[in-house]
Amino acid sequence: MTEKDLASLKVQQDRLMHDIHSTCEWGKGERWGDQSTETGMSRLSLSDTDKQARDWFAETTESLGCKVTTDAMGNQFAVRPGLNEGAMTYAGSHLDTQPTGGRYDGILGVTAGVEMLRTLNDNWVETNYPTGVINWTNEEGARFPKSMVSSGVWAGDIPIADAHALKSVIPANDTATMKSDLERIGYLGSTPCSHTAMPIAAHFELHIEQGPILEAEQRRVGIVRGVQSYKWFTITVRGKESHTGATSFAHRADALLLASKCILASHRIATRHNALASTGILNLRPGSTNTVPGFVEFSLDIRSPSNETVEKVEAECRAAFASLTSDTSSEPEAAHSHPSSLTCDISWRTDFVSPATSFHKDCISCATAAAASLVDSSVPEPDAELNLGAWGKLMTSGAGHDSVYTSKHAPTCMIFAPSRDGVSHNPREFTTPEGCADGAQVLLGAVVRYDRLRGERGR
Amino acid sequence: MTEKDLASLKVQQDRLMHDIHSTCEWGKGERWGDQSTETGMSRLSLSDTDKQARDWFAETTESLGCKVTTDAMGNQFAVRPGLNEGAMTYAGSHLDTQPTGGRYDGILGVTAGVEMLRTLNDNWVETNYPTGVINWTNEEGARFPKSMVSSGVWAGDIPIADAHALKSVIPANDTATMKSDLERIGYLGSTPCSHTAMPIAAHFELHIEQGPILEAEQRRVGIVRGVQSYKWFTITVRGKESHTGATSFAHRADALLLASKCILASHRIATRHNALASTGILNLRPGSTNTVPGFVEFSLDIRSPSNETVEKVEAECRAAFASLTSDTSSEPEAAHSHPSSLTCDISWRTDFVSPATSFHKDCISCATAAAASLVDSSVPEPDAELNLGAWGKLMTSGAGHDSVYTSKHAPTCMIFAPSRDGVSHNPREFTTPEGCADGAQVLLGAVVRYDRLRGERGR
Repeated sequence: MTEKDLASLKVQQDRLMHDIHSTCEWGKGERWGDQSTETGMSRLSLSDTDKQARDWFAETTESLGCKVTTDAMGNQFAVRPGLNEGAMTYAGSHLDTQPTGGRYDGILGVTAGVEMLRTLNDNWVETNYPTGVINWTNEEGARFPKSMVSSGVWAGDIPIADAHALKSVIPANDTATMKSDLERIGYLGSTPCSHTAMPIAAHFELHIEQGPILEAEQRRVGIVRGVQSYKWFTITVRGKESHTGATSFAHRADALLLASKCILASHRIATRHNALASTGILNLRPGSTNTVPGFVEFSLDIRSPSNETVEKVEAECRAAFASLTSDTSSEPEAAHSHPSSLTCDISWRTDFVSPATSFHKDCISCATAAAASLVDSSVPEPDAELNLGAWGKLMTSGAGHDSVYTSKHAPTCMIFAPSRDGVSHNPREFTTPEGCADGAQVLLGAVVRYDRLRGERGR
Repeated sequence: MTEKDLASLKVQQDRLMHDIHSTCEWGKGERWGDQSTETGMSRLSLSDTDKQARDWFAETTESLGCKVTTDAMGNQFAVRPGLNEGAMTYAGSHLDTQPTGGRYDGILGVTAGVEMLRTLNDNWVETNYPTGVINWTNEEGARFPKSMVSSGVWAGDIPIADAHALKSVIPANDTATMKSDLERIGYLGSTPCSHTAMPIAAHFELHIEQGPILEAEQRRVGIVRGVQSYKWFTITVRGKESHTGATSFAHRADALLLASKCILASHRIATRHNALASTGILNLRPGSTNTVPGFVEFSLDIRSPSNETVEKVEAECRAAFASLTSDTSSEPEAAHSHPSSLTCDISWRTDFVSPATSFHKDCISCATAAAASLVDSSVPEPDAELNLGAWGKLMTSGAGHDSVYTSKHAPTCMIFAPSRDGVSHNPREFTTPEGCADGAQVLLGAVVRYDRLRGERGR
């Protein structure tokens, strides 16, 4: 396919937005939409509305000439034939949502894949190898509490028995397991869920950024070169409950005061390493205005594109937190504290470790070239901030996606569309129609370019 | 009464401990006692077990020659006649407990009052004026959520209709009001609850310290010259929810990071003013490891013996918190923060204001003289730390008590017995038998000395 042929392939924004909006009829949660004209979504994995969205996906892609295979985790693979036999170059994402989610997270990637199929058909494009679209099951991990579980099974990282046995946590008192609800809605496929049974030649995932960077820098698209390394911890601080009026600072072991110092220290240390450290959960006991908390538990989420940096930040936080338990600490957070005869204990539990993922250079170049063609630009060298001209940015994903698992067995990369205010997992989640179409255009261009590369290589 | 007569009046430790332990049969909550050989208490105000304790109080004091009056809030006044008619010199405290409380808070003061009556009887003491013991209703405010409500009605500060209408918050789904349960257990007295209907000549309250100071300094008894001033606030921080992985520090409005800075700042400011600032409650939303909290609400409890100091600490905290919302803050807590394009908002709500209470100098001297006689000492001048020799300490109560309300209409002071580890409102609450007896001895000595003073003054 010539550059000129490529340039003539244009996704249709109206058709894409129609698909997004019409599929969002299944599972729309209007009750969440009070803060915006956009409507929130509540399409939990393997629910009745998820079945409706799956049925739409199968019927639509079949009507576009695809053969649809469902595997034992309910992952749907819609395949459009190519000139040659071989593994598929896929666009993939997910149609399930958070319980109070938005209408772009996951949905944009799948509907843009469908729009890719429509555009290829409209233009009578014959690709060298088959292309296709994947709808991954339960990416959110909201109902069955393991994120990206079905691409994890595909990758061989999660045993299918464990995945099938996952119990619903939403709605309350539900007794469904993944397997029982796959059967109930008719999506327990006979094809094994594995990268050998359903090989992938390449995986491109268009997704909303879920962060504020593209919007803040007024860039149209992000090319994602990998996913950050991250580690999750639960930190427990044990001090001593005491009366706020009757206990002088000299006789306290205030678990919340120490936790506050640790939170500030983690922010300081992460800042120094150009990494991220965040606390999203903090629980204390007993929880009374006139009782100094004797117990605090808080989460710590450390991230960086580099595994080594995550390890460094963790090690420095461990040292700083331990030091902060003592009056004589030289950490800056201890500078203005009243000395006390009592101390708190700190303990750490590691909850989750996700090493850094680097996406494939071939996929990244195909996506970058496709993005550059948005503005008829040649591909520039990224600058120090990884900016690619005014239109784009080479970036690292902060969040995990199914692409992390596909990248273990297939060349993979992701494309980000700007998120308004960086908001996601929320009914206020929004990407402009232009932003959606830009993303879909880059997805199409990347898949076709990758197919061309395969044609040149003969595999 | 001569000093020699006074010196011969000795409370009996075994008898006092028997009363404490036997009355604690009503409402003992053995399920709370796992951390200690001591048993916790759960004797909620106006419950069936509170009725049993009240019945014991009335029967026992009547058997000791008292006339018992119950007022419209269920406060019980047991009066032992004196040589002359007149208002009563009382020992008063309360028999209700927290839902997971101990067996000394309140209970010690009432049983020590009963032991005072026994000792006066044993020694055929005829006081100049009537003496007595008060059991105040619902001091804890645990079941009917207003602390010291019945002494508050007595003082004229709380309308009786409001107090009667208070609804039970424990046990769950209980529909009782104070009035309905006063009627149910037969303690809605016909005597008006007021300082005019039931005047008090003086009020002495023996109580456990509920703090660690006496134990830490190895002092036998505390003489309480007043109650700290305190103000309670709820501080609300509104930032912006965002993904911990996808949102750089430069694009965050992290409500928990700001709340942590505020907590440290309040501690620093209070330390500088030799005051107390404490946060016992902190709630955040949404509460997920990978979401930066957009909302935090925390309590702030500021205390000092001086109203002016409380005002100063409040004003400085307001200024510091406001400054900390900005990147350019010069507060030390802001020193190591990454700048951000977003800011959080902070708002304050004042929940409770309790100005400082100063107890009466005559009561304080009677109690101090009684305490000095524990060790046959003359009364020393307190040093800069307000120490009274090795045996005692002149101190300020951090917590509120019924004595705050009685002090508005009658000379009042309190006596503190040491609390092991400063623990209170907890089954591990403990005061040694010797500590209980010391406190009871000082209570008796203070009441008798005050009565002698009244005899000298002829009123």
